[in-house]
Amino acid sequence: MRALATHPAARGLADDCAVLDFGGEALVVTHDMMVEGVHWLPGQDMADVAWKLVATNLSDLAAKGAEPVGVLLGFTLGDQDERFITGLAEALTAFGVPLLGGDTVSANGPRSLGLTALGRATHRPPPSRAGASPGDNLWLTGPVGAAMLGFEALRDHSGANSAAFRRPIPRLAQGRALAPFATAMMDVSDGLLIDAARMADASNVTFAIDSAAVPFPANLPPERRHDAMRWGDDYELLLTLPPGIAPPCPAFCIGLAKPRTPSPVIVDGAVPQGSLGYTHS
Amino acid sequence: MRALATHPAARGLADDCAVLDFGGEALVVTHDMMVEGVHWLPGQDMADVAWKLVATNLSDLAAKGAEPVGVLLGFTLGDQDERFITGLAEALTAFGVPLLGGDTVSANGPRSLGLTALGRATHRPPPSRAGASPGDNLWLTGPVGAAMLGFEALRDHSGANSAAFRRPIPRLAQGRALAPFATAMMDVSDGLLIDAARMADASNVTFAIDSAAVPFPANLPPERRHDAMRWGDDYELLLTLPPGIAPPCPAFCIGLAKPRTPSPVIVDGAVPQGSLGYTHS
Repeated sequence: MRALATHPAARGLADDCAVLDFGGEALVVTHDMMVEGVHWLPGQDMADVAWKLVATNLSDLAAKGAEPVGVLLGFTLGDQDERFITGLAEALTAFGVPLLGGDTVSANGPRSLGLTALGRATHRPPPSRAGASPGDNLWLTGPVGAAMLGFEALRDHSGANSAAFRRPIPRLAQGRALAPFATAMMDVSDGLLIDAARMADASNVTFAIDSAAVPFPANLPPERRHDAMRWGDDYELLLTLPPGIAPPCPAFCIGLAKPRTPSPVIVDGAVPQGSLGYTHS
Repeated sequence: MRALATHPAARGLADDCAVLDFGGEALVVTHDMMVEGVHWLPGQDMADVAWKLVATNLSDLAAKGAEPVGVLLGFTLGDQDERFITGLAEALTAFGVPLLGGDTVSANGPRSLGLTALGRATHRPPPSRAGASPGDNLWLTGPVGAAMLGFEALRDHSGANSAAFRRPIPRLAQGRALAPFATAMMDVSDGLLIDAARMADASNVTFAIDSAAVPFPANLPPERRHDAMRWGDDYELLLTLPPGIAPPCPAFCIGLAKPRTPSPVIVDGAVPQGSLGYTHS
């Protein structure tokens, strides 16, 4: 990632979505991959994998306030192809998005899947990660930690509900509602603290987060809150709004943007210790 | 491919490009994958692989008469990443196309790469494979067989020129010039005969091809012409024009569309024997 992302030819890979003018509108495009054994558990239901592949890409569009216009699939054939198709159809139907095209290949070894999502920005310019200013409030559209509990249920065969991990829901309606007001917005894919740090870096601010204001699922043990702020896959939207502006949809005010300090995030007045979350290679 | 392509959720995968209205223009999108050991030789220079990944996707745009507006890359990290970046930058510069974004992953086993190309149709509607009518002439923009010779040079370490295989050139300018006149158009990626058969099937015609009119590279031994019509990777454009219409760029008239017969292609008056070319899984 680093070598590619820092090369002039590949500068665009550092960001989640690209926005380009097309025919007088703003076309939002994103491409995310999933790899067997990295992004899904071996033996996992491929219908869930297909759903997640669609949902995570649409989540990138949601963070731009974009409405999806279609997806392209890069698919490596293998086990459970019928299940994959079933999950793909379920996701496309659930989110009202057409499959525009793609490619299928055969390969040995761990499979990799790619999805490109295309969207139309409903507000221009679409929000980026870079627009937060000191004084802006930091908001989160919903709880973090449910996907972590879902992953653990699946991994441990505990029988507990794992839907939050398997079948995430992109916050498309919320993204469209928030885009006209948000000074910065992104989806929480890798973890609340690390994604907040990325927004802080892009905006050159520091976020002071009040952990007592962060929403968690009701069944999260209190001692797991530390982990839940460092786990991804919940796909809530993280955004900043100017002071005095209330969000047009349910959201939780979890902190404040301050002038930049050495640390991009401060939690309960202190620099968080240890890792902020999951970092993709 | 078959299972996915015949499923309603994946109907679009059967075609090369998708065309959608966006902001009053026609957005053309395509996604192609390349897999190590399938689409490139183990040990091949990754700069060439990057070039080909870009070129083959842009060739799909060329067949629609579209001008490229950008690409998204799905990249599996591995050996020779710097060479890949070099070839990627060379191709993007040569064709004047920006890298809009993408994703990188780490994975074990054979690597797979995906590229999404976005273009703007310069003529509407863009040509498809389905528009040929009996009486139309069948045209080809250049010789077939050079990539085959290039592949063999590379495979056999003969020292002969392999550039046609390693560094194909999408016929973007030709595609734009031809799009207003072509009744059907596609790029020859899998082989002249099999791609002509696909166009014939889509258009419900039969193409009568005169092999003496098919252009071949000067260094192709005459006994290899049979193979050259069945080998892909040359990325010339194959198109039909109404009778009496001359192409606005250099091209060769190689046949004629006739009312449909059981065989989609007839070569020198006979149904071709054996395989028509390479069929992707």
